[in-house]
Amino acid sequence: MPGESNTHIYPVQAHPHPFDPLSATEIEYAIAIIRKQHGQLRYSCNAVSLSEPKKAEMLAWLTAPDTKPRPRREAEVVVVGVDLLYDGIVDLDNGKILKWEKLQGLQPMIMMEDLQGTEKIIRTDPKVIEQCGILGIPPEDMHKIYCDPWTIGYDERYGNKVRLQQALMYYRQSLDDSQYSFPLDFCPIVDTEAKKVIAIDVPKVRRPLNTIASNYNPKDIEADGGYRKDLKPINITQPEGVSFTVDGRVVNWQNFSFHVGFNHREGIVLNNITYNDKGNIRPLFYRMSLAEMVVPYGNPEYPHHRKHAFDLGEYGGGYMTNSLALGCDCKGVIHYFDAVFANKAGAPITIKNAVCIHEEDSGILFKHTDFRDDSAIITRGRKLIVSQIFTAANYEYCVYWIFHQDATIQLEIRLTGILNTYAMAPGEDTNGWGTEVHPGVNAHNHQHLFCLRLDPQIDGQKNTVFQVDSACGPGEVGSAENKHGNAFYAQKTKYSTVKESISDYDGSTSRTWDICNTNKIHPYSKKYASYKLVSREVPRLLPKEGGLVWKRAGFARHAIHVTKYADNQLHPAGRHVPQTSGEPSLGLPEWVGDGTESIDNEDIVLWHTFGLTHFPAPEDYPIMPAEPISLLLRPRHFFLRNPALDVMPTYVSTPSGVKEKMAIDKRDKESRLAFEEQKAYYGTKGEINKVETFTNK
Amino acid sequence: MPGESNTHIYPVQAHPHPFDPLSATEIEYAIAIIRKQHGQLRYSCNAVSLSEPKKAEMLAWLTAPDTKPRPRREAEVVVVGVDLLYDGIVDLDNGKILKWEKLQGLQPMIMMEDLQGTEKIIRTDPKVIEQCGILGIPPEDMHKIYCDPWTIGYDERYGNKVRLQQALMYYRQSLDDSQYSFPLDFCPIVDTEAKKVIAIDVPKVRRPLNTIASNYNPKDIEADGGYRKDLKPINITQPEGVSFTVDGRVVNWQNFSFHVGFNHREGIVLNNITYNDKGNIRPLFYRMSLAEMVVPYGNPEYPHHRKHAFDLGEYGGGYMTNSLALGCDCKGVIHYFDAVFANKAGAPITIKNAVCIHEEDSGILFKHTDFRDDSAIITRGRKLIVSQIFTAANYEYCVYWIFHQDATIQLEIRLTGILNTYAMAPGEDTNGWGTEVHPGVNAHNHQHLFCLRLDPQIDGQKNTVFQVDSACGPGEVGSAENKHGNAFYAQKTKYSTVKESISDYDGSTSRTWDICNTNKIHPYSKKYASYKLVSREVPRLLPKEGGLVWKRAGFARHAIHVTKYADNQLHPAGRHVPQTSGEPSLGLPEWVGDGTESIDNEDIVLWHTFGLTHFPAPEDYPIMPAEPISLLLRPRHFFLRNPALDVMPTYVSTPSGVKEKMAIDKRDKESRLAFEEQKAYYGTKGEINKVETFTNK
Repeated sequence: MPGESNTHIYPVQAHPHPFDPLSATEIEYAIAIIRKQHGQLRYSCNAVSLSEPKKAEMLAWLTAPDTKPRPRREAEVVVVGVDLLYDGIVDLDNGKILKWEKLQGLQPMIMMEDLQGTEKIIRTDPKVIEQCGILGIPPEDMHKIYCDPWTIGYDERYGNKVRLQQALMYYRQSLDDSQYSFPLDFCPIVDTEAKKVIAIDVPKVRRPLNTIASNYNPKDIEADGGYRKDLKPINITQPEGVSFTVDGRVVNWQNFSFHVGFNHREGIVLNNITYNDKGNIRPLFYRMSLAEMVVPYGNPEYPHHRKHAFDLGEYGGGYMTNSLALGCDCKGVIHYFDAVFANKAGAPITIKNAVCIHEEDSGILFKHTDFRDDSAIITRGRKLIVSQIFTAANYEYCVYWIFHQDATIQLEIRLTGILNTYAMAPGEDTNGWGTEVHPGVNAHNHQHLFCLRLDPQIDGQKNTVFQVDSACGPGEVGSAENKHGNAFYAQKTKYSTVKESISDYDGSTSRTWDICNTNKIHPYSKKYASYKLVSREVPRLLPKEGGLVWKRAGFARHAIHVTKYADNQLHPAGRHVPQTSGEPSLGLPEWVGDGTESIDNEDIVLWHTFGLTHFPAPEDYPIMPAEPISLLLRPRHFFLRNPALDVMPTYVSTPSGVKEKMAIDKRDKESRLAFEEQKAYYGTKGEINKVETFTNK
Repeated sequence: MPGESNTHIYPVQAHPHPFDPLSATEIEYAIAIIRKQHGQLRYSCNAVSLSEPKKAEMLAWLTAPDTKPRPRREAEVVVVGVDLLYDGIVDLDNGKILKWEKLQGLQPMIMMEDLQGTEKIIRTDPKVIEQCGILGIPPEDMHKIYCDPWTIGYDERYGNKVRLQQALMYYRQSLDDSQYSFPLDFCPIVDTEAKKVIAIDVPKVRRPLNTIASNYNPKDIEADGGYRKDLKPINITQPEGVSFTVDGRVVNWQNFSFHVGFNHREGIVLNNITYNDKGNIRPLFYRMSLAEMVVPYGNPEYPHHRKHAFDLGEYGGGYMTNSLALGCDCKGVIHYFDAVFANKAGAPITIKNAVCIHEEDSGILFKHTDFRDDSAIITRGRKLIVSQIFTAANYEYCVYWIFHQDATIQLEIRLTGILNTYAMAPGEDTNGWGTEVHPGVNAHNHQHLFCLRLDPQIDGQKNTVFQVDSACGPGEVGSAENKHGNAFYAQKTKYSTVKESISDYDGSTSRTWDICNTNKIHPYSKKYASYKLVSREVPRLLPKEGGLVWKRAGFARHAIHVTKYADNQLHPAGRHVPQTSGEPSLGLPEWVGDGTESIDNEDIVLWHTFGLTHFPAPEDYPIMPAEPISLLLRPRHFFLRNPALDVMPTYVSTPSGVKEKMAIDKRDKESRLAFEEQKAYYGTKGEINKVETFTNK
């Protein structure tokens, strides 16, 4: 690790929240402490990140932050050399190293700097130049050669001793061309630390360089007929500002409170989500994040099996995150958090506006009209969105953590960006493993499988998960108990052990999962306080059992795993993911063990794999319209009744109000009619004298 | 039919579009023609509605509306008496009756007037008064008795000879109380035409009248702690107006064109949806509507099996539709269409603002950042929404037909309103058939199953449906063809005959359906031009085979049926739904026949049943937060490439622009930061000199 050893004094006066990401100062301090003990390191910094407080200590502190001992502030530090890495923990409060473990046979994440340097390496490699020549690209055009460097996945020839990238090759005739229309058919393998090409995979049958561009930049669109001219602006204004408050990184909005963390790997981490239920602060989730992803590609031809990116564990959803722009990525009134990481030199770098927090109108929250007299209530909803967007080479993942006024929490991911592409020879058959989305361009089938890590605290730390399937009642049609055959019910199956919890989605029963506190019974329904996971985009892992992806992505074999909570069990494909062989499978399969551990009324973690299978089409090219995936966490038997009843209605008329021609009218006065004067009409009988019987503030 | 016979002259100069709903004048004219021939009718008018033009005639006219013969304007007229109905067709162009068929043993829809009169009938019935007395309600309090009148479903005792309603009974202590907290345990049966109670179903074990209210009106919320005080307004303004045009009822927006119809039964009907693909007007769907619904309840105890409302076929999604209010049901700049129906007297009545058309921002349409230089494109999306909301007694259905700029069509339904409730005795067990959502209030399990009728014209009238399942490739792990086990593909199964098309959803394969034009091959992908149906909320019909609901709701037995197009096959549970026994099953099961008809490259109709199964919870009470269901129709292999590329980006910087510090910046300038001055940041390297290299208009 280059640079001088500095002695920083840890700025104790700052008192960061224990969940806060490390500040630039803390990153510098952690590095300084390591340098002080170990001197000039020969290695690259790979990560300097918050080592999250032990849960037990943190829970104790959260009960009384002014009096209980503050959890120790710790940094985890990873440095990496040619054939080793050090996994360290630094105690920032006491300025000492708690752990400095040398590991071999493991590879930590590939960093942006690693990726960004690869193009230079391949452009000057003689064998790459030779291969380009075979495709008709002369040596003087090597500046037109580009590559998307991916981790190698796993290559049996090299194992995990050398730190490798595979360079997915492209060409640009012009600097502004989209390179994905010009894939090259060979694949150099680059030694990240030695900074050299160590092999090139060349297919037996060659595919010529494509000649036809498909671009999306303004000059290309102008040449193709120009932009649509009939779109008029929609402005979103919040003249009185936002309805949320931010204290440090703790956000309060509509009875929700939560801490917005962020790390280089998972990106956004939401901690200690609670709901203020009429003065009673009720815990919901201790921690919530996207913990891992895998994107297996479905072409079995060599060497495409290596394309199965673990975008979070191999590259980092934080490291790859975008700087967001006001009025662009999000509209309205916005609060941003920056993200701070260490670069390879161990110096702090900042990504501005990494996390966006904003509100949106969400349409009708609830409505009812009495058909007798047209008395009505209409309440419009609002949502709060905590979002980030990260770019994984070709793809963009837009991640939206959405809070609703009815206490529902939603995770929406929009997939956009550009398809990974490979070359096709004229007349070549895709064999069904991909689609020719553009002449000579094969976009392979793939899945995006995300692992949502939910650490629940539904009214307390001891929770239990039940599988819920819709089921027909017993008794055949004509029987006394089910004469007309219409009996049906919610069949609930408790997951008592880890083994029982390992389960798949079942669309035929509209399967959901209840995360329950079995110690809290609803006074009316007599059912357990719970949050229900409603997730409908749950494809099974298509790579086969025993194969490379199946072995490496153990978490993705099933939709649900529930484990007993343990500190540091954060990364379901293992802590260091690149170049793992999957023998043994790391992360979740290790923690599952023999599956006999009790998860009944314990501190548990639920791992949910969801996503989609993508069979590309030309409409996805050259840049994909965003495709959304969404799941919900809905309170069930948790609140006494609809918790959003106290949201100010837009319009209310009661039966007695209708008689007296009185209504409460808080309609948005900015709305208007499109074309003509037309009387706005409530569906109420007769004229309304608007009367407020209560005050808004 | 009461009232004087009038002789109207049909206003030919009006030239309504052949898909337009009947105007008030046309309704009056149709009735006048019938009265002229049949004199004063003794019967009630049940429906006067557009008899839609024959498809062949309509398609011919659409090719050249100025020169081809305009399809004849026809009204369908239904009148109903005590034991008969007349089903008629009136030729409005020539002022004559084309059909006047007397039918017996069938019951047409229950009308709002029928429902609205029922409360008066039960309040004065001695046996109802007696039953109320048993529950402690004195005769002088009968004005506090309410009922939600439902069609009877089917009751073996009465069959279909008498026109019946079942009165689901409630009580209100105060006029403004929500009655659903005070269900009464008995159920009067009302003869609609005789206007009298003919029976009362009384349970063996009585349930006392509830005493605890759960209200949501302002005074109740004020008493319960008041409204949230921290919500600040979000305004949506469109200073330059809307981006759509309306010509009569034909809407044009972002290359889409379609006609917005509306009828008393289905509500919104979208006709002749086309897409202007760079000057080529390409047909997508000839007709699209919600054709039927069934809401079976899962409690097998007598007489709850009768609760399985066919909201469209028994009551009418048009008849029950709400008048929408500006800045309330929808925000922004709105265009409304009114709806005109005939009342029981045959006179036209208008529901103002029955259909809302408006635009919304829809977040990121597509985005990509090049990790090399942070050159980026961000384009925000827009959607156009055609919506209506209808109130089916307790429930509200908010129906949104949504058009996206990437040529996707989405149907979203939000369920809100109030749960149907029944009385519970203290200590009574729900037996799992329902949930005690409030003390003494049992909300029964139920399903909402909607039937989407899609009449496609994907690049022409001859289309074919394929089932698409994700599937593992052949070859075991280690085999030459699938060494690493990662092969997967889209398995497509053609539905050649009606029988083959009758199919269910399969979540384990992420099943979708492609509606293809097998005569149109994509020049790049070599696959058929298609629209893909992506629908993930597809519960199976839980009432059992052979039971009452299964028999009556034939369409709901499977997720998909494809039939060959035939004029007048519009209503999949039959044309006249109330009191059908299901023996034989009407509608779709009749049209399926022996299932041998070819649907391969034919003019076809796809019937898709989707929805959700609802196991109530206290959070749904006393009024339900809106629960959304959504499905997509996405173009696949239809366009040459992403059809939204010509939407003006919000921000673009090209690699060459980044070098020259130039970018195109069309960010919304209304957006601002929430709390402090913070420099907006694009994620571009260095300062940007904003330059437009093209013009917006």
